[in-house]
Amino acid sequence: MFRNTALKLFSGSSHPQLASEVAKLLRMQVSELAIKKFASNEIYVKPSETVRGCDVYIFQTATHNVNEELIELFIIIDAMKRSFAARIHVVMPHYGYARQDRVATPREPISAKVIANLIKSAGADHVITMNLHSDQAQGFFNFPVDNLTSSKMLAEYFLKKKMDNMVVVAPDTGAAKAAKRFSDMIGADLAILHKTRPAHNVSEVTQVVGDVTGKTCLIIDDMVDTAGTVVQGKEALIKRGASPDVYLATTHAVFSDPAVSRLKAAQFKEVVVTDTIPLPPEKQFEGLTVLSVAPILAKTIQSVHKSKSVTSHNH
Amino acid sequence: MFRNTALKLFSGSSHPQLASEVAKLLRMQVSELAIKKFASNEIYVKPSETVRGCDVYIFQTATHNVNEELIELFIIIDAMKRSFAARIHVVMPHYGYARQDRVATPREPISAKVIANLIKSAGADHVITMNLHSDQAQGFFNFPVDNLTSSKMLAEYFLKKKMDNMVVVAPDTGAAKAAKRFSDMIGADLAILHKTRPAHNVSEVTQVVGDVTGKTCLIIDDMVDTAGTVVQGKEALIKRGASPDVYLATTHAVFSDPAVSRLKAAQFKEVVVTDTIPLPPEKQFEGLTVLSVAPILAKTIQSVHKSKSVTSHNH
Amino acid sequence: MFRNTALKLFSGSSHPQLASEVAKLLRMQVSELAIKKFASNEIYVKPSETVRGCDVYIFQTATHNVNEELIELFIIIDAMKRSFAARIHVVMPHYGYARQDRVATPREPISAKVIANLIKSAGADHVITMNLHSDQAQGFFNFPVDNLTSSKMLAEYFLKKKMDNMVVVAPDTGAAKAAKRFSDMIGADLAILHKTRPAHNVSEVTQVVGDVTGKTCLIIDDMVDTAGTVVQGKEALIKRGASPDVYLATTHAVFSDPAVSRLKAAQFKEVVVTDTIPLPPEKQFEGLTVLSVAPILAKTIQSVHKSKSVTSHNH
Amino acid sequence: MFRNTALKLFSGSSHPQLASEVAKLLRMQVSELAIKKFASNEIYVKPSETVRGCDVYIFQTATHNVNEELIELFIIIDAMKRSFAARIHVVMPHYGYARQDRVATPREPISAKVIANLIKSAGADHVITMNLHSDQAQGFFNFPVDNLTSSKMLAEYFLKKKMDNMVVVAPDTGAAKAAKRFSDMIGADLAILHKTRPAHNVSEVTQVVGDVTGKTCLIIDDMVDTAGTVVQGKEALIKRGASPDVYLATTHAVFSDPAVSRLKAAQFKEVVVTDTIPLPPEKQFEGLTVLSVAPILAKTIQSVHKSKSVTSHNH
Amino acid sequence: MFRNTALKLFSGSSHPQLASEVAKLLRMQVSELAIKKFASNEIYVKPSETVRGCDVYIFQTATHNVNEELIELFIIIDAMKRSFAARIHVVMPHYGYARQDRVATPREPISAKVIANLIKSAGADHVITMNLHSDQAQGFFNFPVDNLTSSKMLAEYFLKKKMDNMVVVAPDTGAAKAAKRFSDMIGADLAILHKTRPAHNVSEVTQVVGDVTGKTCLIIDDMVDTAGTVVQGKEALIKRGASPDVYLATTHAVFSDPAVSRLKAAQFKEVVVTDTIPLPPEKQFEGLTVLSVAPILAKTIQSVHKSKSVTSHNH
Amino acid sequence: MFRNTALKLFSGSSHPQLASEVAKLLRMQVSELAIKKFASNEIYVKPSETVRGCDVYIFQTATHNVNEELIELFIIIDAMKRSFAARIHVVMPHYGYARQDRVATPREPISAKVIANLIKSAGADHVITMNLHSDQAQGFFNFPVDNLTSSKMLAEYFLKKKMDNMVVVAPDTGAAKAAKRFSDMIGADLAILHKTRPAHNVSEVTQVVGDVTGKTCLIIDDMVDTAGTVVQGKEALIKRGASPDVYLATTHAVFSDPAVSRLKAAQFKEVVVTDTIPLPPEKQFEGLTVLSVAPILAKTIQSVHKSKSVTSHNH
Repeated sequence: MFRNTALKLFSGSSHPQLASEVAKLLRMQVSELAIKKFASNEIYVKPSETVRGCDVYIFQTATHNVNEELIELFIIIDAMKRSFAARIHVVMPHYGYARQDRVATPREPISAKVIANLIKSAGADHVITMNLHSDQAQGFFNFPVDNLTSSKMLAEYFLKKKMDNMVVVAPDTGAAKAAKRFSDMIGADLAILHKTRPAHNVSEVTQVVGDVTGKTCLIIDDMVDTAGTVVQGKEALIKRGASPDVYLATTHAVFSDPAVSRLKAAQFKEVVVTDTIPLPPEKQFEGLTVLSVAPILAKTIQSVHKSKSVTSHNH
Repeated sequence: MFRNTALKLFSGSSHPQLASEVAKLLRMQVSELAIKKFASNEIYVKPSETVRGCDVYIFQTATHNVNEELIELFIIIDAMKRSFAARIHVVMPHYGYARQDRVATPREPISAKVIANLIKSAGADHVITMNLHSDQAQGFFNFPVDNLTSSKMLAEYFLKKKMDNMVVVAPDTGAAKAAKRFSDMIGADLAILHKTRPAHNVSEVTQVVGDVTGKTCLIIDDMVDTAGTVVQGKEALIKRGASPDVYLATTHAVFSDPAVSRLKAAQFKEVVVTDTIPLPPEKQFEGLTVLSVAPILAKTIQSVHKSKSVTSHNH
Repeated sequence: MFRNTALKLFSGSSHPQLASEVAKLLRMQVSELAIKKFASNEIYVKPSETVRGCDVYIFQTATHNVNEELIELFIIIDAMKRSFAARIHVVMPHYGYARQDRVATPREPISAKVIANLIKSAGADHVITMNLHSDQAQGFFNFPVDNLTSSKMLAEYFLKKKMDNMVVVAPDTGAAKAAKRFSDMIGADLAILHKTRPAHNVSEVTQVVGDVTGKTCLIIDDMVDTAGTVVQGKEALIKRGASPDVYLATTHAVFSDPAVSRLKAAQFKEVVVTDTIPLPPEKQFEGLTVLSVAPILAKTIQSVHKSKSVTSHNH
Repeated sequence: MFRNTALKLFSGSSHPQLASEVAKLLRMQVSELAIKKFASNEIYVKPSETVRGCDVYIFQTATHNVNEELIELFIIIDAMKRSFAARIHVVMPHYGYARQDRVATPREPISAKVIANLIKSAGADHVITMNLHSDQAQGFFNFPVDNLTSSKMLAEYFLKKKMDNMVVVAPDTGAAKAAKRFSDMIGADLAILHKTRPAHNVSEVTQVVGDVTGKTCLIIDDMVDTAGTVVQGKEALIKRGASPDVYLATTHAVFSDPAVSRLKAAQFKEVVVTDTIPLPPEKQFEGLTVLSVAPILAKTIQSVHKSKSVTSHNH
Repeated sequence: MFRNTALKLFSGSSHPQLASEVAKLLRMQVSELAIKKFASNEIYVKPSETVRGCDVYIFQTATHNVNEELIELFIIIDAMKRSFAARIHVVMPHYGYARQDRVATPREPISAKVIANLIKSAGADHVITMNLHSDQAQGFFNFPVDNLTSSKMLAEYFLKKKMDNMVVVAPDTGAAKAAKRFSDMIGADLAILHKTRPAHNVSEVTQVVGDVTGKTCLIIDDMVDTAGTVVQGKEALIKRGASPDVYLATTHAVFSDPAVSRLKAAQFKEVVVTDTIPLPPEKQFEGLTVLSVAPILAKTIQSVHKSKSVTSHNH
Repeated sequence: MFRNTALKLFSGSSHPQLASEVAKLLRMQVSELAIKKFASNEIYVKPSETVRGCDVYIFQTATHNVNEELIELFIIIDAMKRSFAARIHVVMPHYGYARQDRVATPREPISAKVIANLIKSAGADHVITMNLHSDQAQGFFNFPVDNLTSSKMLAEYFLKKKMDNMVVVAPDTGAAKAAKRFSDMIGADLAILHKTRPAHNVSEVTQVVGDVTGKTCLIIDDMVDTAGTVVQGKEALIKRGASPDVYLATTHAVFSDPAVSRLKAAQFKEVVVTDTIPLPPEKQFEGLTVLSVAPILAKTIQSVHKSKSVTSHNH
């Protein structure tokens, strides 16, 4: 936006590797930011170099340590603001609390909105995120949000495989719209799963809406958390006659326990995820493919800084 | 919230009948509000009685005159605020611009969020609406929103008919989640429609995902605008073997041209709507059933004013 | 303000011709902005090119379609803001609702202030307008307002005519101050009209305060709406002995029905207006002279963009 | 607004007598508020009793000590807010800086708006003032303003005198509208004064617009500051044949030097003012009549507190 | 503030016991609030009963789990706000991040201010806290803060012991002012410790300013974190001739590792703390006395709710 | 922050000499700003040249005319904002009302916070001040504050004197922390004064905490107001055996009556102050040394404008 200002990248403690990769693609360094915890567990941060007049990008994604990471983020933003940064951009590839985006039953908070308010209140000017759980969450902010998508990257990955007879499967009705868009991108059919409880005190059954007989299924969702739904979905698809080679694709590999053991046991043909959330070795397994979103983020930051349209690589 | 304040109802020019019906149920009168237009088309409003210290409820729904209605609403709110109303509640059963709730392609506004900001900026304290196009739009507001639902009322209407072999049909993938919830309420199956374009320069085809053979279909959506999608959906369902007796249910009967002629021609078994939007005689037709949301609104206002939970009749 | 940012002009649907003329004077093009209406009458807008980091000027004046134009404006501003415009300038030569600028009788809104709040809330940074109905309305905004004036241009037009024995006439006491300023600019006398009701149930009579016998009168006001007051004023002046050659000058030719037929019938010597509001052929008539404000707007935009003083051509 | 809260009056240092009179009319006491100045001239304030949950009215008018009074007011408001007052009402009969209400020449501040913003920012909820220099200044606030008027009281005072052949005179064109309204109230004619400079280097001459020959003139304005204009106006009226018995009426008797000596010398038949500004003995003189606004303020406060309409005694 | 509203207490997960004790003193129950963590560690909260129109008090103190507790608090506040609570009070006896209250070296955040902004942004109306690390932090909020103090309770505890020849010791210069106030309360002398580094590469030495020979020392501070400073202070005092019976008093027993083992080893005569932070059995030891702040909090809540002055029991 | 914008300095009426000296060091002129007072004592300001797009620095320190100066400052800020300044920096070396930074006894305002809110509300973007009475007051602002310090300059002044056997003395416990920091800077011992009242109805006695026998004392504080405490402190030090050559150093020489006569009578060896507040000849006396802060301010402005770190010369 302000072409003449210097550009600096900083990384919170959640995913330094992603920040480094983006920096490398931008042929620059991640600037140093001291982060420590006092004995009381209060976090202390301090940028090690001047940010006066700079466009500052703060990388902080949401992992299982999401609450600490958010407080850390708010404090980093304040340090930048009080140190006269010209503009503060938050790069949060996996947006924390994204699923709490509406009052599902009375008296619930809209936590995704709370986080939006707090990011703004702390002093940020712009948020870059990816595959928000609901597109509408962009409207939680009064300032611009770049909601990037990994879908094109994922679609290209599957198109290269040149598979026939595919059906894209939404694991639940809330994911139907995104799955539909993906099926159009790769020219596949669409099926939708949902759960019903045949009777009181009987456990839920996964229903398959759509014809999957003899087809190769690709279950797709914005995030995979404990993997329960997708694993049950896989079983239901096969029971309904789908090919046993089922694929799973997702942007945000949250992989909470027992996701990894479930996924290992389920033996998907391939599980394709991105690196919006760091995946330590113990969370990796055979059949897992990790695509990096670093190029998407790097191009976006470059465009924002040079005030060019981010459309071409965003959609 | 403030039990000791007086309660007054006012109606904008969009739907005075609904305000009257709610007032009748609350055993009170709609207070007088002068609304006129100058020769220049600028709107002038003035409440005819004191509102000092009152809890004021302003009825204004979105019809085809939505833009005029919104400006009128903002001005009414200001008149109330400057006249010392204790609390200003906006009752907007059909929320205008609800569908523009996300940046679908780059550089689009989020108009539903704009309207939320303007309602707040004008001085409102609370919004009561119904079946918001996306639940997430509640998060566009920093103050409480009562997003009421007509689903329970519609479900009871269909349950009373004791029909067998039903399938609830979402007219597109974005409506899948709400249709799923409705199918659970009435104990029916679920099917989902979506459109595909078989080849370039070929017109779109409505696909049916799910088994509808021999079944009685009920297409449900939060709103019916030009009715093109639902009429095409009805044809596709019948082509796929559904019973020719297709029902249509919706909360918001927007009925833009040529919705009425299309619906008449399509000969649905029954079209069930609510009165969140006024339906003048020329928009009514055989087979149309209009259920009133006045009881839901009246109970909500009563609960809000008495500071009771609105849950019991809201969900 | 930000000399290094690109400058882009966009036009709402109210007065594209004025935007084009300003663009021509600035030797640039009006950028493309898609504006359409859905069947429901909800407006949809989308700039067709990137505005990231640009200084954006949005032209939207208030015509008889003022309410639609305001909503359209708010949505355009949001689209610009969410598309990362560096700075959003609203060019509204005729400011809508300018006359509703105070609580004249209890419980009235201050609609001109409401519009100011909404423009700000939508995300604008700066407003350029002309001959505001009251100078004080600048104070409705917390951000800078360029309240330009066409008075110098109008004064020069009349000075070129080298007419003697002139008197500048305020059509009512509220216009006395501006008329006084204009009379000083062209070196003429001053008279003021006002209406009195001699007795109950008797119609109002226009009183002439000041000596007009044998003089050439120039009635001046910031806007002419239905033209009733100025036509009655003309008659009163002649009855009081003024020359039958009466001139009328105004900045904002609102010309609501039946202004045009009244003005035609009244046969002013000349009616001089500006193009802050578009005047379609059917609103033009013999004796009407339209001066363009495009040069004033173009110079102002240039000065703002180059961060020069706008004083020299503004006052 | 909140009928069940206690009502407390406090007085800043500008006009304690007016607060006392209002309190007496309300049959209550002015609550104690410690105000002192440190050696550094920094002001210190502290309410001497609890205000928790109370509706607090703070009296502070603008005198020649206006700047000190404003800072004192902001600090009092903060003390009330931090002490949990339920609602903070500012009673400022003469609003400071009211004349700086527009950008008359480039780069001027709108100081009346600045004061409005600061009163709001300090924490006030409501302002009660009288005869604002421009009605539009109400729009400088986003919260309700009671702009009371002393005109009815002044009109009744003159009507009781049963004088014939009167003309109400505006001392300049900016006062024409208010003078017109007053002339209608007492059934008198209207004349307007304005100044012209016949040639460069020649002093200004007061012009009389309207016929005053043989009439009894009443010059009226919202405030009289140094009295230069009204004294010159009186002379011009007499020179134009008016009766030598000229009256002067005003709400705000600012009376800056040399107003009192000028007024004494000018020998108006009567100078009628109100007590919105305290008039110490040395500013009083023969022929001066002071009407008290205390009853108007008392009734307004009572109405606000009981949530009744304030219209009946305000207009 | 609003005497007629219902009062409800809720407890976050940090210190339910304190909430219970306060509730017992107020002869009421802590209302139920569901708090759970998803597998992803995102927190979910939901009050189990209506809060519409209620004055809600949310108990959440800062323990070693401070970051989780803060996010939890923000979400609880949002749930209350969206559920129409009339007024949201945060009871945070130990205010998290209180020590990060200034920019000590360049580019540091003011985290205590960040937390204040976030509490406000989430929707709280009022904060009740105790012995803030700096009194000035009250000014971080624009709304009222009740900064209660346990000093009177602690002073009474020591006065009851009727000890002679005491000196109150500030462990560092920043604590001097509070220690001085405490010494006045119990009629004791004052001494102040501070550290100096005699030479480069030499470890710091605790200096004793003031005469402690033969005296009984009471080290007092607002919080004890790792206890390093106070234990070294005790040694320095004894080395300077103080009686070996040294007392330690503090409001906030943070007791981060290795505080407990240090305190056990140091063998203070008595360590007197309060329960603003829960002290599990493993953090308790011989010689530790815990005074409860529940009575202070209960009286304050009662006063706030009844709109009485809280002064008498606060200071 | 915006390197390409022009830099302009303006001076309020409080301390034009300091602005001139800073301008000279920056090799530029102070821009002209018309400031006058109307007969009513309302202040009028107007910058004499364009500030459109400029980075504007407004000098205004707090003297004994603090209340007038603050109102003047708020109005200057508004004039700059409405004249399109890109960025408004307030240079207030002595921050007014700095001592009223907390609620010391119930119902007091936090006036230092009020001033912060008003500066922000008027439209400033940045404040440069010196030696704030409490560091925490930086947190009263949501925008960046450069709290510069004269301590390094003062320390260097005393280090050059190469005095032995020195003790830095805090005049009260609130100044202990700053005195400690200063004593570390010049390698001196530390002593702290405080007052006690031996018995009821007996006057206060200044206690000396720390050993001063035979030492050269330097009393240091952020400001000296009436000088009572420091003069009593000097006497107490000498009574406790200190060398009669006592020094006094302070940043802000407020010098309210009777400070100058007290200081003259007390015969300090030397009184070292800075020029954050203008010292007219009648406030100067033998033994007074005035160090200029102009170089510190000039370097800071240069760094801010060039977006360099201000750390090196600030700390």
